[in-house]
Amino acid sequence: MRTAHLLALAFALAAPLAQGLTPVEKPRSSAEILEASAPGDWRRIDDENLMLLTLPKGQVLIELAPRFAPQHVANVKALVRERYFDGLAVMRVQDNYVAQWGDADAKKPIRSARKTLPAEFFRKLDDTLAFTPLGDVDSYGPEAGFSMGLPAVRDVARAEAWLAHCYAMVGAGRDTAHDSGGGPELYVVIGHAPRHLDRNVTLLGRVVQGIEQLSTLPRGTGALGFYEKPSQRVAIRRVRIAADLPVAQRPRLEALRTDTATWTAFVDARRHRREEWFIEPTGHIELCNVPLPVRIPKQ
Amino acid sequence: MRTAHLLALAFALAAPLAQGLTPVEKPRSSAEILEASAPGDWRRIDDENLMLLTLPKGQVLIELAPRFAPQHVANVKALVRERYFDGLAVMRVQDNYVAQWGDADAKKPIRSARKTLPAEFFRKLDDTLAFTPLGDVDSYGPEAGFSMGLPAVRDVARAEAWLAHCYAMVGAGRDTAHDSGGGPELYVVIGHAPRHLDRNVTLLGRVVQGIEQLSTLPRGTGALGFYEKPSQRVAIRRVRIAADLPVAQRPRLEALRTDTATWTAFVDARRHRREEWFIEPTGHIELCNVPLPVRIPKQ
Repeated sequence: MRTAHLLALAFALAAPLAQGLTPVEKPRSSAEILEASAPGDWRRIDDENLMLLTLPKGQVLIELAPRFAPQHVANVKALVRERYFDGLAVMRVQDNYVAQWGDADAKKPIRSARKTLPAEFFRKLDDTLAFTPLGDVDSYGPEAGFSMGLPAVRDVARAEAWLAHCYAMVGAGRDTAHDSGGGPELYVVIGHAPRHLDRNVTLLGRVVQGIEQLSTLPRGTGALGFYEKPSQRVAIRRVRIAADLPVAQRPRLEALRTDTATWTAFVDARRHRREEWFIEPTGHIELCNVPLPVRIPKQ
Repeated sequence: MRTAHLLALAFALAAPLAQGLTPVEKPRSSAEILEASAPGDWRRIDDENLMLLTLPKGQVLIELAPRFAPQHVANVKALVRERYFDGLAVMRVQDNYVAQWGDADAKKPIRSARKTLPAEFFRKLDDTLAFTPLGDVDSYGPEAGFSMGLPAVRDVARAEAWLAHCYAMVGAGRDTAHDSGGGPELYVVIGHAPRHLDRNVTLLGRVVQGIEQLSTLPRGTGALGFYEKPSQRVAIRRVRIAADLPVAQRPRLEALRTDTATWTAFVDARRHRREEWFIEPTGHIELCNVPLPVRIPKQ
């Protein structure tokens, strides 16, 4: 366990101080670690993978995950580019679960994109997939960690990896058949991680900014949180891919890389919570409790 | 692990069917288990422990937890009974974290109740405390389970038990000192369980109905989700204890008992998700993914 290792390391570092020798640096908080980060610890979110969902009160930015769901990401982009989502609506908001949008009336034709796709519930685990293990026990998977900014699980025995249903993750709704999803209907997790959905639905991205536009929506009072009246639905003004916007209008967002020493230090600070307020630092952290720092870089 | 045991049992039950002998009952869904429950599987929520928080758009019902935080519960009730909360406000709503209410201006005098109390972060584990183990691995505690309807952790080695920071749990905000809380400022979890707060803050109850009145509030844009302007705060009309209301006005709420065979079957159905939609049933469940069924009994 990495936790045990790091604890041992912390004790080793503390020893000289206890013996009154050289002073030892105080463990840094996660905020201090981010402040001290280098430019190379951050990556610009690719304009080709940044989706902008405009709702009446503001914008939601979603980073797509082509390394985990290449076909779904390509199809969602095709749907966006044929303006499929414009004028559709959020029609389901279930408290502590999901907000979902699409064509509530199943009337809008899909032109060039696909209506459904084969499932991409997991992918092959191979050397091309970056994976930074979390090191802490996970209730749902053999080994939790992070892959290109996303919470993920890998199973070396099965040689598979998959994304985890943490808060803000975006997936493709489906009916009972495993290949009945594809992207025309999307949902985002707005509550405690429903990890039982892992490997059961295709996750294809994550909200990186503006999730409050979805998480504060009125909860639907119908079954499963669907709005009972069409008038309650929340209109989608437009959905765009950042790369299709004039350069000046593209959001300039950077996310912390998850394959760096800064990331490891950041997660460790969240794991141990050495801030004065914490009376009993935990020493553990659960996958979905690790946030992805996102920032707008200085011009 | 109980999971492994139950899987073995499921296989044993399936055997006669595979051999064409007697038909075997189909595993029931959690909804079917609740439908088939007996009246004794439910408990009436005690009017003395049911707190009603009235906000502009509706009511939030909170069940207090005197077995875990007796002094805090007594003090919150004293605060309610001196009308301390009436006219105060929700002043902090941080996305995927907490909503918090109290006296944002620190001006309202406290008369008979206490302003602060010694911490009740955990309690002694003894024979008087009901505890139904979950049986699944927990990221944060040695043994997760349920005690009188509440998500909890017990540690036999330390002879201690404590409540877990799951969605909808209510706690007493505090400053840096461990004994700086007490009840005048309360918060509720409205996001992914911040379990690192376990054993660091006194939890004293849980929202059992109406959490959407808090979870849909606009997020504060100040540090830690505080509202930046007093005008953004959400007024608390009144807070009452159900026992103080005329009998006809008391909510008649029942919660599923967590020390029954029905509860164990309910949790197991949520753990395995045998419904047709699930392509890969999980076989695990995490403490905070087990909801507490609550109903209004038939008259």
